[in-house]
Amino acid sequence: MSKLEDKVLEVQRELRKTEEFAKFEASFEAMLADDKARGLYESFRDVQLDLNQKQSQGIEVTEAEIEESREQFEALKESDIIKDFMTNEYQLNQLIHEISVVIMKPLEEAYEASME
Amino acid sequence: MSKLEDKVLEVQRELRKTEEFAKFEASFEAMLADDKARGLYESFRDVQLDLNQKQSQGIEVTEAEIEESREQFEALKESDIIKDFMTNEYQLNQLIHEISVVIMKPLEEAYEASME
Repeated sequence: MSKLEDKVLEVQRELRKTEEFAKFEASFEAMLADDKARGLYESFRDVQLDLNQKQSQGIEVTEAEIEESREQFEALKESDIIKDFMTNEYQLNQLIHEISVVIMKPLEEAYEASME
Repeated sequence: MSKLEDKVLEVQRELRKTEEFAKFEASFEAMLADDKARGLYESFRDVQLDLNQKQSQGIEVTEAEIEESREQFEALKESDIIKDFMTNEYQLNQLIHEISVVIMKPLEEAYEASME
């Protein structure tokens, strides 16, 4: 295994130990353990997966489908268990964004230098 | 500095040392040092930045603009110096994609477990 791969795995292990990941995982499990929250989450996820698949295949998404997706998203926000999960999912994604900014810095510097 | 930040910086340092990054940087510099290649690259980049900005502002991109962008892209491929840079840029992006897959694995596992 190269030193880079080794260091990347260390980042993965440290990420698993963060408070952000612990909260994401715990609130995800809490949501899945609650029948009502799980049902709402799964319906929303399935519609999203379906819409993404249509878009990737170039199939037009209808106004009714967008409206259904919007209504499901509003329904999600009625559940405190789901809101809690979504907040923690967002925080974890913010952390991952910060990680990627640091890793990508060498590329960013090259592109910036080319603008001078 | 947290242990996670420390490990992320180590990944950044190891990435800088890879053959993929060295080739990306060297071919980028070679392209910028060649007046003709630099001119083609900069025109293409400026049109792309302009189109991206329009799209992010919800301004419609015209057929003529898309055609101009396509023609510029074809012109880029006439230059061996630019083709070399684009190949190396692609290889580096592949490596970064592999890094992100490893780092994101804990999230992927959580999402997969929720599908069961």
